[in-house]
Amino acid sequence: MRALTVTPGQPSAAELVELDEPSPEEGSVLVRTVAVGVCGTDREIMSGEYGEAPPGEDRLVIGHESLGRVVEAPEGSGLSAGDLVVAVVREPDPEPCTSCAVGEQDMCRNGRYTEHGIKGVHGFARDSYRAEPDRLVAVPASLGLRGVLVEPASVLAKAWEHIEHIGRRGRWEPRTVLVTGAGPVGLLAALMGAQRGLEVHVADLVTDGPKPELVRRLGGTYHGGPVEQVDLAADVVLECTGVPQVVAHVLGGTAPGAVVCLAGVSSPGRVDIDLGSLNREWVLDNDVVFGSVNANRRHYEAAVEALVQADPAWLDGMVTRVVPLEDFAEAVEDREGDIKSVLLLDTPPD
Amino acid sequence: MRALTVTPGQPSAAELVELDEPSPEEGSVLVRTVAVGVCGTDREIMSGEYGEAPPGEDRLVIGHESLGRVVEAPEGSGLSAGDLVVAVVREPDPEPCTSCAVGEQDMCRNGRYTEHGIKGVHGFARDSYRAEPDRLVAVPASLGLRGVLVEPASVLAKAWEHIEHIGRRGRWEPRTVLVTGAGPVGLLAALMGAQRGLEVHVADLVTDGPKPELVRRLGGTYHGGPVEQVDLAADVVLECTGVPQVVAHVLGGTAPGAVVCLAGVSSPGRVDIDLGSLNREWVLDNDVVFGSVNANRRHYEAAVEALVQADPAWLDGMVTRVVPLEDFAEAVEDREGDIKSVLLLDTPPD
Repeated sequence: MRALTVTPGQPSAAELVELDEPSPEEGSVLVRTVAVGVCGTDREIMSGEYGEAPPGEDRLVIGHESLGRVVEAPEGSGLSAGDLVVAVVREPDPEPCTSCAVGEQDMCRNGRYTEHGIKGVHGFARDSYRAEPDRLVAVPASLGLRGVLVEPASVLAKAWEHIEHIGRRGRWEPRTVLVTGAGPVGLLAALMGAQRGLEVHVADLVTDGPKPELVRRLGGTYHGGPVEQVDLAADVVLECTGVPQVVAHVLGGTAPGAVVCLAGVSSPGRVDIDLGSLNREWVLDNDVVFGSVNANRRHYEAAVEALVQADPAWLDGMVTRVVPLEDFAEAVEDREGDIKSVLLLDTPPD
Repeated sequence: MRALTVTPGQPSAAELVELDEPSPEEGSVLVRTVAVGVCGTDREIMSGEYGEAPPGEDRLVIGHESLGRVVEAPEGSGLSAGDLVVAVVREPDPEPCTSCAVGEQDMCRNGRYTEHGIKGVHGFARDSYRAEPDRLVAVPASLGLRGVLVEPASVLAKAWEHIEHIGRRGRWEPRTVLVTGAGPVGLLAALMGAQRGLEVHVADLVTDGPKPELVRRLGGTYHGGPVEQVDLAADVVLECTGVPQVVAHVLGGTAPGAVVCLAGVSSPGRVDIDLGSLNREWVLDNDVVFGSVNANRRHYEAAVEALVQADPAWLDGMVTRVVPLEDFAEAVEDREGDIKSVLLLDTPPD
């Protein structure tokens, strides 16, 4: 079968190779991959900045935003041939920490988790894979190819779950959310903010292309330009850029009792900030800043729910490029107006 | 009656004055003040940096860490003559925000709260005051003069309640807590950490006097010196100094899933930090940083509970100076080995 692989640590080493069919040891459910989404982490892995091959191997099959179709599944697994499924990305260590032991590997405390297509275990940009039923989340047929958005949406479903849990340490009646960055992560954050009835604001440097219209179609306000120009003391902030200057800006100037969720991974970058005043605001206003990464099975299920509730045409608008697996180089190109690129491995669902 | 007052905004204007007995409009319960604790906020108010007199008045009666004895209380109030009580400091605005409306004025969202002895309403450094029963928290007679620690302890009871609520968004099994600053707030934070069975570490620049011994008596480890020298990735951090460089240090280097509670109010102070790396750590480790201020009635009750459980001799060790009201100038002096100074207005309980 075909598989898109990289040699971690080497730039531009992405290559389609032939691999054996997945071994039964991988899991009792055989899945034929329909599509994989491409994200910033994939681009980092392809450029050699990130990624880790499985132990004893040189190459890593990439692809962690998957959509597949069950080929065969054991009786009692809850899955049947033809079902659409998304695979959970993070796997606990065989000797799990206290979080991983209860299925919360997204909150892993010892860092010994692995991640399909990213860290130590193969991903899903291959024609078939196998997994145990508890690693697969069923996707309603009605979602179709939009099911490839479940994995990125799971990251936001977790972020929102945590925002709301944290907010509810007191009376919690947020009205406004500011999302920084209108990439796939930011747009899914905005979708879930709108689904919660919040007044949604999205800030992104881009001023044209599909992003402003997608935000407007959520009933939200699009702020094209630097985030410093947004005049809003938000109750919730979802930071999805990872740009240190943007992070610095959203740490303060929020409403009292605000919850700021950082969801964008950043590179080192020094910033000169008035931490004295910021600390004073955080303390006197009971503000919260927290980071959120990855997602566990509960969040995948919440993500499916959120996508099912969304306007299908809006979700289609997020997928700006679909290319066959062979044209992977085209999928990772950075083009104006891009939001989410998807690699197609098999006939998409209707 | 005697009252210790300041003219807010004027340095060194603290003065003992004669006031009329409290008016029945102040509340149905008459309380004779036994003692008031002196804290950093009082010193700021006395130096003219902070504080606000009641509307239409020039002077503010200070004192918000109170202990009093009920003189008369209405039937059915749950209070009787002779009961020891502590008054809740923060009052909601007559047109309360959504938080104040449910008794959570510590989480006030519009800033229109008032605070006895601090902001817009008289404090308790006067021989008598009146309050409604719901503004008074009963203190067991066994606590005696140590009841004057209930108000500062309520701030930490809130901080710990929020730490635990936030931590429980996932599996929560903290082992270690780092407290920065071994003043009254830090020591009470450490006490409550020890009461939760955590491994307690306290960092403070002071290397001698009573602080190291008080921490050791909690079973904790005292780190005398700069916090940078403490080699610990803590699960919980309680920052009680408000010093920007200390805040900057504790924002990172914590354990995965750490909860950092900022409880020290700071002055402006610029710091050059690698916010890119810090954001990356917060995101990839699911770390939380939050500010906490003040307390509501529920937290006063939790504070009473915590103090009742504590070793009375340990609490006595925190009160390093008790002086009669007339000697207030002595109480606010900054002396080596000071922890908590208390002004005595009436015969202390046995």
